[in-house]
Amino acid sequence: MSNQGIAPVAAHQPPYYAVVFTSLRTEGDNGYGETAERMGELVKEIPGFLGEDYARTPGGLGISVAYFRDEAAIEEWRNHLEHRAAKRHGRDHWFERYSIHISKVEHSHGFERAHQ
Amino acid sequence: MSNQGIAPVAAHQPPYYAVVFTSLRTEGDNGYGETAERMGELVKEIPGFLGEDYARTPGGLGISVAYFRDEAAIEEWRNHLEHRAAKRHGRDHWFERYSIHISKVEHSHGFERAHQ
Repeated sequence: MSNQGIAPVAAHQPPYYAVVFTSLRTEGDNGYGETAERMGELVKEIPGFLGEDYARTPGGLGISVAYFRDEAAIEEWRNHLEHRAAKRHGRDHWFERYSIHISKVEHSHGFERAHQ
Repeated sequence: MSNQGIAPVAAHQPPYYAVVFTSLRTEGDNGYGETAERMGELVKEIPGFLGEDYARTPGGLGISVAYFRDEAAIEEWRNHLEHRAAKRHGRDHWFERYSIHISKVEHSHGFERAHQ
């Protein structure tokens, strides 16, 4: 869940999947940062994982978007035992609210400023 | 593009659409904030617009996710003249890079902490 050198995940060739996770945290870190970093490493081991973007407004919403090649990759990550334990801990300790939207990307494009 | 009282847009009944816009800004505001606020008001007039979430890590990525009931609503917003002008201005002045992912939400769910 880092900004990975601060470039958004590139637009891939559709179809692929985007998992949008929008959350409002409880106060304090409570071990969240360490687990988020660990999850960010673990998800890279999932075949079909394409990348992840993360942003958080201080005192406001956090949005992470993880991209996967297909539903099988999402399913594998969803059922990963350490990820499941982290999600349970998140509902118990880290999140006031969240929404998850699992979606199939049909169109995409990217822009990069030209520098002279 | 405000946090709307800081609650994520709720999980709607699929299918619906999520437009993920992930961006890295140029330095300074350069009029971005004012236009973003105006766009945030205009998009609410599009029939089928369901809501928008926005987060930005200071010095890092911004992610906005706008939700629409169907592709016709996205198309109407995409072709909106004032929105088109803002997008052109964005490519000329506000953004170093961005990625857009237009996706159909197939599954969604929400969580809200129970308070005693």
